[in-house]
Amino acid sequence: MPIDLKRSHFGLHLTYDGYGADFATLNSKKAVLSFLESLVKQLEMKKLIGPLAVRAKENNFNDPGGYTGFVVVQESHISVHTFPRRRFVSIDAYSCKDYDFKMAIKFITAYFKVKRKELNIIIRGKKYPTKNLV
Amino acid sequence: MPIDLKRSHFGLHLTYDGYGADFATLNSKKAVLSFLESLVKQLEMKKLIGPLAVRAKENNFNDPGGYTGFVVVQESHISVHTFPRRRFVSIDAYSCKDYDFKMAIKFITAYFKVKRKELNIIIRGKKYPTKNLV
Repeated sequence: MPIDLKRSHFGLHLTYDGYGADFATLNSKKAVLSFLESLVKQLEMKKLIGPLAVRAKENNFNDPGGYTGFVVVQESHISVHTFPRRRFVSIDAYSCKDYDFKMAIKFITAYFKVKRKELNIIIRGKKYPTKNLV
Repeated sequence: MPIDLKRSHFGLHLTYDGYGADFATLNSKKAVLSFLESLVKQLEMKKLIGPLAVRAKENNFNDPGGYTGFVVVQESHISVHTFPRRRFVSIDAYSCKDYDFKMAIKFITAYFKVKRKELNIIIRGKKYPTKNLV
């Protein structure tokens, strides 16, 4: 792994924006929910809420509508926003657990058949206290 | 604003990690839900799901428990994770709308009485297609 995952931080946050993704997968509520279920299972996270998904209607020139899905896990959250008509998907996987983000990236790319991607790996809570303060 | 917000990207994502925050606010489900309601209103976003909040139990040395709240908006999502015993709060505000992230930062800091913070402003979907492809 390219990142030092020693526990001097709170968590790891992957942002994944994918282009040229599969229209049918992006355009299916069932596929979005199944994606979240599968990723949570692969990363061995514990669900607290969801997965939930909702259809977002077209709202302006920049947003032709799609699905938003969300799952709250013990370790934080995973979200997905799909824009089928732009063949675009935007995902966040944020966890206080040092999960295998390379596996997550591969899984997402394969699931949505993404052609090009933009990624950020963000270390969250760099000064997270190692002991309870209260 | 320090960032060029011309619409050649999909959206704007603020990550906000705050230290030394107020225990009582972090430790209240009502306060977490009210925070999300207020921020959505201030940023003039449209709610699609939630706000919802759930208590996360202590799960390991790094996570002494707290609340997770989220709201799905037409424009994307806002999430909040609180860790009262560490006086830590971790927030994401992601929108396809060019919202006033400076206002959001001020609001968060005041609401949770944050003493020190770490921020990232991430431009999401830098090559987001400006027209429908399908």
